[in-house]
Amino acid sequence: MIDFQASPPKYKHWKLAIDGTIARLSMDVQEDETLADGYKLKLNSYDLGVDIELADAIQRIRFEHPSVRAVVIASLKPRIFCAGANIYMLGTSSHAFKVNFCKFTNETRCAIEDDSHNSGRRYLAALNGTASGGGYELAIACDEIYLVDDGNSAVSLPEVPLLGVLPGTGGLTRLVDKRKVRRDRADVFSTLAEGLKGKRAKEWGLIDDTFPTSKFQEAIDERVRALAQTVGLANSSSGEAAMEDGPADSLRGIKLNPLDVTSTEDAREYKYVSLKFHRDKRHVDLTVRGPECWPQKSAEELQRLGDDYWPLRAYRELDDALLHLRVNEPEIGLVCVRTQGDIRNILDRDAELAANRDHWLVREIILHMARVLRRIDLTAKSFFAIIEPGSCFAGNLFELVLAADRSYMLNNPEEIVEIMPTELNTGAFPMSNGLTRLQSRFLAEPDKADKASGHQAPLDAETAETAGLITFAPDDLDWEDEIRLAIEERTSLSPDALTGMEASLRFAGPETMDTKIYGRLTAWQNWIFQRPNAVGPKGALTNYGKPTQAQFDYKRT
Amino acid sequence: MIDFQASPPKYKHWKLAIDGTIARLSMDVQEDETLADGYKLKLNSYDLGVDIELADAIQRIRFEHPSVRAVVIASLKPRIFCAGANIYMLGTSSHAFKVNFCKFTNETRCAIEDDSHNSGRRYLAALNGTASGGGYELAIACDEIYLVDDGNSAVSLPEVPLLGVLPGTGGLTRLVDKRKVRRDRADVFSTLAEGLKGKRAKEWGLIDDTFPTSKFQEAIDERVRALAQTVGLANSSSGEAAMEDGPADSLRGIKLNPLDVTSTEDAREYKYVSLKFHRDKRHVDLTVRGPECWPQKSAEELQRLGDDYWPLRAYRELDDALLHLRVNEPEIGLVCVRTQGDIRNILDRDAELAANRDHWLVREIILHMARVLRRIDLTAKSFFAIIEPGSCFAGNLFELVLAADRSYMLNNPEEIVEIMPTELNTGAFPMSNGLTRLQSRFLAEPDKADKASGHQAPLDAETAETAGLITFAPDDLDWEDEIRLAIEERTSLSPDALTGMEASLRFAGPETMDTKIYGRLTAWQNWIFQRPNAVGPKGALTNYGKPTQAQFDYKRT
Repeated sequence: MIDFQASPPKYKHWKLAIDGTIARLSMDVQEDETLADGYKLKLNSYDLGVDIELADAIQRIRFEHPSVRAVVIASLKPRIFCAGANIYMLGTSSHAFKVNFCKFTNETRCAIEDDSHNSGRRYLAALNGTASGGGYELAIACDEIYLVDDGNSAVSLPEVPLLGVLPGTGGLTRLVDKRKVRRDRADVFSTLAEGLKGKRAKEWGLIDDTFPTSKFQEAIDERVRALAQTVGLANSSSGEAAMEDGPADSLRGIKLNPLDVTSTEDAREYKYVSLKFHRDKRHVDLTVRGPECWPQKSAEELQRLGDDYWPLRAYRELDDALLHLRVNEPEIGLVCVRTQGDIRNILDRDAELAANRDHWLVREIILHMARVLRRIDLTAKSFFAIIEPGSCFAGNLFELVLAADRSYMLNNPEEIVEIMPTELNTGAFPMSNGLTRLQSRFLAEPDKADKASGHQAPLDAETAETAGLITFAPDDLDWEDEIRLAIEERTSLSPDALTGMEASLRFAGPETMDTKIYGRLTAWQNWIFQRPNAVGPKGALTNYGKPTQAQFDYKRT
Repeated sequence: MIDFQASPPKYKHWKLAIDGTIARLSMDVQEDETLADGYKLKLNSYDLGVDIELADAIQRIRFEHPSVRAVVIASLKPRIFCAGANIYMLGTSSHAFKVNFCKFTNETRCAIEDDSHNSGRRYLAALNGTASGGGYELAIACDEIYLVDDGNSAVSLPEVPLLGVLPGTGGLTRLVDKRKVRRDRADVFSTLAEGLKGKRAKEWGLIDDTFPTSKFQEAIDERVRALAQTVGLANSSSGEAAMEDGPADSLRGIKLNPLDVTSTEDAREYKYVSLKFHRDKRHVDLTVRGPECWPQKSAEELQRLGDDYWPLRAYRELDDALLHLRVNEPEIGLVCVRTQGDIRNILDRDAELAANRDHWLVREIILHMARVLRRIDLTAKSFFAIIEPGSCFAGNLFELVLAADRSYMLNNPEEIVEIMPTELNTGAFPMSNGLTRLQSRFLAEPDKADKASGHQAPLDAETAETAGLITFAPDDLDWEDEIRLAIEERTSLSPDALTGMEASLRFAGPETMDTKIYGRLTAWQNWIFQRPNAVGPKGALTNYGKPTQAQFDYKRT
């Protein structure tokens, strides 16, 4: 079982050092500390375990070290930055694991960009040596890239020429969409196993600058100091994020403690989140319990609550549960999302979040909730929201209804079953495509998206159905049969067809770099990841590093 | 060998009838007239041969019957509109053929929308019976859909529940992006084998209206008459196309004659286009010969030239050559694009096209050229433009350089080797993403895209390289070696990795419904098309219609 929790004292592969407004995140991968047997993590190559630590470090910078304004990502290995995802790990992994590995590493890189874009923290990749494949893809997730000019070090994406697969962590998309490298140059670069060194890499826009070995560290230090100063004083360059929390040094972080999880044969229990498995029927009940009742608090009081504050704790638990389901429970095809609690308590918490959204901690909490919700959109399992008596699908938890592929709401006048959108559903939790889930839902009737958040009281099933906020509202007599049949039917369908269908239907409307990475690029990579030319006995991935050579079927598809 | 040429007298599966401003395109698929053995085209199901005729019919309406303002797509079979792509054909086809089949049918549906969007002709799908799978996908490519209400007929996308694959012809994307069906309803609809009938189909936005059997034909006739009248008087509803060519009846079409093609073992010769195969090296030389020299002509003179006019004839030939390469030459991985002719003659033709672009025929010719160029972007082969003495990569043919993955231009001061963008490169030939190829090329430096078309004289290799218009400009000494090595290297790489890489790098910038269909949706479908759950011995596609049942590996990926 893969554990997605990490903390700096236990890091095996990364060092996180905080120096005032600057964080240094240094990669020093331990060859033998692998997540599975059969490969060694040489040359700062990585497996999922390395990336879990990286994701944790970025999260901790945001919550525990809010005064940080610039983050340097560097390597502690001499003359090598990072060799990318470990090829032997990929070569020996199942198709499903490869796909989930790439998805998680993509989410980690998007989390770097989310921090830069929304919290204004600047990321700088200091390439003291060659950055190849996923190593370069980590660099292009940063805002700025500097490469040592030592006559040898290069940036490269050798996947196509050496492995017969794509750079799987957003590389091709970021090359042309983020760094806007000319497509013919991107074509040359992506087929050049040895990559490009300083001067030409800079000319082609692959890096921002290059410095001789003797001046490299000094130049990086200077640049990161400058970044930390300018960023602290103004909005982020994207114009979207405000870093106006006062002098950076005055910000005090909160500690992210380990989550308490109890695992049994058919359940996984957190404080606010439960998973109950029906493995023989290939579905799971995921229940989120709402917050307790308390009067609205000020930002300072919330800061004192720290990671015990419901919106942070519940969503951290939800995040861990989702990752667990993806990687450790592949046979579970359907997640039935349920909630328990009092709608009024959710409304209080949402009002509290909305009132304090300019405070750094509340901003980070909301951004975290948004990332967790996007993790749902990108999870290759079906989601049904089941809205029953005692549930509390309001505000931020109503977003679970909107994120679900379908929703079923009991229509029984004898019992109170209600949902309620709040202000937070109108912009706090954008999808990867940049729209709110209400906007995505009502592309044909945008006024319904506006109306949805204007209700002054909770909506019963019939009102919710009329407003278009739920899919079905069976009555008491039909309820159990309808839910049972819907579950049986869903879990009987081809899991592959469902994955492709959901990836298409969930993302109507505009596309962004993120959706291009998860849609276009990932889908092509998944295709290639099961082609004999990559993974067959004569495939390039299979034969990498062996005395045998790949032999291709050259038919173009 | 599959022949992509067709003409109405030889149609086996469609009837095209013109009645003033109305065209009726009726599907009457002949079961036994299949393109390959082993299946029967029952219930108006189709194979590639049926779609080649459909594509031809749409093209002919545009060129031969410009007075047509509204097109009704209907069925001559009682109580069935169209059952979609033939399952047994799909089940017995190779992966590569399935993928190319879907690509072509997608292009045909996009051609319908191109006609609607840019030429203002309205398409109406008259569903006299059930439209399932590709049958419904054909309907949603039309502007309006009407379904008979006979208590039985439905629209459906049964691919996921019955076949374990996706609707492969844009269905899922058009469902949520074009018809803007709510995503949870789209989810329900796409997993419901039997589909939805009139009333609910209308309520969910799957069709525009439904009429009882007794009134169906009358209602369709009335609606199409209204469409033909309103459309003739105004711009298209999209606001982009003008139908201001005067009274519709006064327009005289031109005849599209069959192309002359001579095929030999290692070549395929048209009047202006040649293919020369180097099959042992897996590449082909595709040469386009420029037009002859003549003074600029008026629109009336061009109309008299008819399909012999170079821009129409050369691009029709290029289109046929591309389709031939895709389907009949799968082992060819690289197309070396060359031109022969005098740049001045191209400049004259471009000026002629630009001066007459408001004339219906010239507009259709330019739109046709744009579609052919998009066919290159969507072809799963590498393209290198080779710019040598005697070439004429100017204006519309310079677009071939921009469409290529790379370009090589000889830099030899002793010889005249020149390229030249013209006004036509700044908007006449948009890519599927809505940008010009110059815009896509210069996302980082948009001013270079503007400057590119401002040159008053042809550019030599060094100027072209400085302007960023070509990839490499080797000198005379290096030229042959560099080209040879580039070809050898390219054709040695994994064809699958190249397909995925090119699909990612060619489409930087914005996405549209078209790019979503060809990128996201197609990539997922290709993935599913080789999953054991679909095509393995126990897969759903393999077992469709057999007494055996599909058995899935339920692991979610």
